[in-house]
Amino acid sequence: MKLTILGCHSATPRWDANPTAQVLEVKGHVFLIDCAEGTQVQLRRFKIKFARIKHIFISHLHGDHFFGLVGLISTFRLLGRDADLHIYGPKGIKEAMLLQLKLGKSYTNYKLFFHELESTEPELVFEDDKLTITTIPLDHRVYTNGFLFQEKLGERKLDINAARAKGVDMSYYSKIKQGFDAPDKNGTIVANKSITTDPDPAKSYAYCSDTAYYPAIVPQITNATALYHESTFLDTHHELAEKTKHSTAKEAAVIAKKANVGKLILGHYSGRYRTQEGFKNEAQEIFEATELAQDGKVFDI
Amino acid sequence: MKLTILGCHSATPRWDANPTAQVLEVKGHVFLIDCAEGTQVQLRRFKIKFARIKHIFISHLHGDHFFGLVGLISTFRLLGRDADLHIYGPKGIKEAMLLQLKLGKSYTNYKLFFHELESTEPELVFEDDKLTITTIPLDHRVYTNGFLFQEKLGERKLDINAARAKGVDMSYYSKIKQGFDAPDKNGTIVANKSITTDPDPAKSYAYCSDTAYYPAIVPQITNATALYHESTFLDTHHELAEKTKHSTAKEAAVIAKKANVGKLILGHYSGRYRTQEGFKNEAQEIFEATELAQDGKVFDI
Repeated sequence: MKLTILGCHSATPRWDANPTAQVLEVKGHVFLIDCAEGTQVQLRRFKIKFARIKHIFISHLHGDHFFGLVGLISTFRLLGRDADLHIYGPKGIKEAMLLQLKLGKSYTNYKLFFHELESTEPELVFEDDKLTITTIPLDHRVYTNGFLFQEKLGERKLDINAARAKGVDMSYYSKIKQGFDAPDKNGTIVANKSITTDPDPAKSYAYCSDTAYYPAIVPQITNATALYHESTFLDTHHELAEKTKHSTAKEAAVIAKKANVGKLILGHYSGRYRTQEGFKNEAQEIFEATELAQDGKVFDI
Repeated sequence: MKLTILGCHSATPRWDANPTAQVLEVKGHVFLIDCAEGTQVQLRRFKIKFARIKHIFISHLHGDHFFGLVGLISTFRLLGRDADLHIYGPKGIKEAMLLQLKLGKSYTNYKLFFHELESTEPELVFEDDKLTITTIPLDHRVYTNGFLFQEKLGERKLDINAARAKGVDMSYYSKIKQGFDAPDKNGTIVANKSITTDPDPAKSYAYCSDTAYYPAIVPQITNATALYHESTFLDTHHELAEKTKHSTAKEAAVIAKKANVGKLILGHYSGRYRTQEGFKNEAQEIFEATELAQDGKVFDI
């Protein structure tokens, strides 16, 4: 999994601080998560191929998470896109997009599918043979979901030298990767484990923004390889966090610790702080494996 | 009049090429004309004070002219604005803005007035004691207006030394500036022209984008001090201009010449051209006083 942060600042776009958008590349997919104003410029800047984006996930309908979506949809049209585009987001997103396209007589020449969300329980929104994507209901001022991207466990790895040494015919290889035993040339059964090794561990990425401190998400994101959790404020402003249903860096770290994730990535910083080092320091007192998102930063998960 | 170009490129925002938005400062007002995605970042970049913008004029509802508006409205709210904001644009703009604010439960805490336009005749949309603003109906793929900003002729300039020498009491100064004659201390009438000079000439700025070549606008914009006219294409691509209802640089120059304007400013360049020099050269063959808009360029009109 490769995560590129296009923007990780809260509230308003500024010259050197973009609001939320990120790209997750996994198993051949390029998923766009949130799409603030300016996202299409950031996509160009970090050389993400527009045509490879086929699924866009919108957490909630605050401007700093979706005001760039209609522009991106329009630019896809101008660039002559013909691939389908799937958009997952809160109920209402379809009407907002289509109204603007209609006003400009700018309907897309590619197929646009809206998957509107309104459940307050985790919901499977995407699945193929390699991964699943599930909503993570969050606690914010408007209806909001995070998203959990989970790889499926891959096939067992064939030890081709061992298989040959045991005299197993290659016509069995496909079944062996699925975990089956196979006969050697004499018809003697060869145990699967003696000619395969375990698959790579399945990774997972949990995106949680925006949200108040909300331990209800812990069971769902437990053992995630990486967790992006918003930290709009420092603990010194915890009253503001409570009032606006955002989290502090400390609260994000408590969630990371409770969920035993591999790595915590902080973001959605309020513009009131000049630097972000304070967020990292505050979180690391509770959860050591904390990193800071920054616009343009790439994380290998 | 001071015109700051925030963006002057067509169709899609790019790292170094912003779509349409400009700021006209005149008689104490700061008018924003069009508001493409990224406009609020450009406003910050060129240090335009957000709070001074009280009137926004939207030509038409194509994304590259209005997708930045909802974000700007939201940012005004986040910055704690309390001044009224007036928005002038095609019918439908109000619904598009309010729907998005409603979805985010982000209604403004300042007063927002929409002045929706649907007339195909020039319409006076703003007037105070110093200027008028009138729509310029244009010919594009969707309903579109340019805007004509016209100063009113100011008061006559009092020659205070001449007035004193003639013995005119200062209680008459206000009337004298309005053009009236006044008595000297003996009651003899002093001719207004002998103690005043002509006011500064009233300037005007005509913004015309987007539009096909449309000579019907010439009578309305005749003698404008400056004309911004779109030139999406060069004459080599005049079929594309016709098909998309845009103009070539040559056509913009013909309009400027017919209307006898003081200066032609070109903009709305298609991304297919690497540089803009070709636009200037093409236009200057017909109309010498041609300049190129560039993002960040300031014109004194």
